[in-house]
Amino acid sequence: MNKQRGLLIVLSGPSGVGKGTVRKELFTQPNTNYEYSISMTTRAPREGEVDGIDYFFKTKEEFEGLIHAGGLLEHAEFVGNYYGTPLAYVNETLDAGRDVFLEIEVQGAAQIRAKAPDALFIFLAPPSLTALQNRLEGRGTEPADVIAKRVATASQELEMMSLYDYVVENDEVQHACDKINAIIKAEHCRRERVEKRYLSMLKGE
Amino acid sequence: MNKQRGLLIVLSGPSGVGKGTVRKELFTQPNTNYEYSISMTTRAPREGEVDGIDYFFKTKEEFEGLIHAGGLLEHAEFVGNYYGTPLAYVNETLDAGRDVFLEIEVQGAAQIRAKAPDALFIFLAPPSLTALQNRLEGRGTEPADVIAKRVATASQELEMMSLYDYVVENDEVQHACDKINAIIKAEHCRRERVEKRYLSMLKGE
Repeated sequence: MNKQRGLLIVLSGPSGVGKGTVRKELFTQPNTNYEYSISMTTRAPREGEVDGIDYFFKTKEEFEGLIHAGGLLEHAEFVGNYYGTPLAYVNETLDAGRDVFLEIEVQGAAQIRAKAPDALFIFLAPPSLTALQNRLEGRGTEPADVIAKRVATASQELEMMSLYDYVVENDEVQHACDKINAIIKAEHCRRERVEKRYLSMLKGE
Repeated sequence: MNKQRGLLIVLSGPSGVGKGTVRKELFTQPNTNYEYSISMTTRAPREGEVDGIDYFFKTKEEFEGLIHAGGLLEHAEFVGNYYGTPLAYVNETLDAGRDVFLEIEVQGAAQIRAKAPDALFIFLAPPSLTALQNRLEGRGTEPADVIAKRVATASQELEMMSLYDYVVENDEVQHACDKINAIIKAEHCRRERVEKRYLSMLKGE
């Protein structure tokens, strides 16, 4: 059987829905068999965030240099900062037959949807907009005006759900992780992904 | 939130692939939250099979009466016997918001595909045709000429994989069950299934 290219898994959703928390929980679990692609950003590290683990933290000049060199799979500007995905790591890992997991903003996800239609798109959704606001306030990392801007943006971002393959409600982190792992397992059984390889294997037995 | 209609889950695959074994294992597990729809057949019970548990065993006349009365969701003739799914139980269970699980022959699955395109179709596939023949011989319930006929039929039935949403290889019963449960969990998160309900809930919070 030929080696199959890995699956590109994109987790996104409105700002503040808890993408980072869910992603961290997924990667602390022992059965994760996909690789995390660390994003690049120009925003300042939050308390406890480490360069090369949570993000690659870059200056605006460094980031714009990469954009112009074509070194990013996607990038987006959000609340005054750049976020993006380094291209080389993603391609090398997929070519080696391993799945790559991205956790990105919705603008970036829309770019990947256009470039890689066979990727797997998972939208993490809040139980309600009130829950989203409470979560941002509880995080305590941003002033009220930034939070208000984030909630307004999130409300628009919910409309982008229609570009995604799956919607996972982040009611509890563990529930969301269980669903995401089930989706990835199921997606490897999608008929379009396996049919050709399977029938040729059966005939050539 | 309005009560959502249940999901109709169809497990099928070539004769002898082990559909019954996988289905029994699924329903011995504690977390199964879907209802099994017992099929109806005119074939003789195998050793250990119980009427009303493994199948509803009927005479040819009884079965044909139900066909004419429109009382079957699907039916098929296979190696000289009828197999079918009683319609009333399926509709009542789906209307109550519970998922229904069918384990049926590929002819019947094709009929449901035409009638209920939003059902979930899972194709159980053998690791190889040799493995299938060995499995039928090991079962020891049929003479050599019936087995030869079954393997020839199975080879044709593999072509019907293209009608299905998912393909699950029955290499080991527990692997197959894990994949089927992941597929059902994932399918409940498919964007087309949840988007409308989700957005109206968010707006009406």
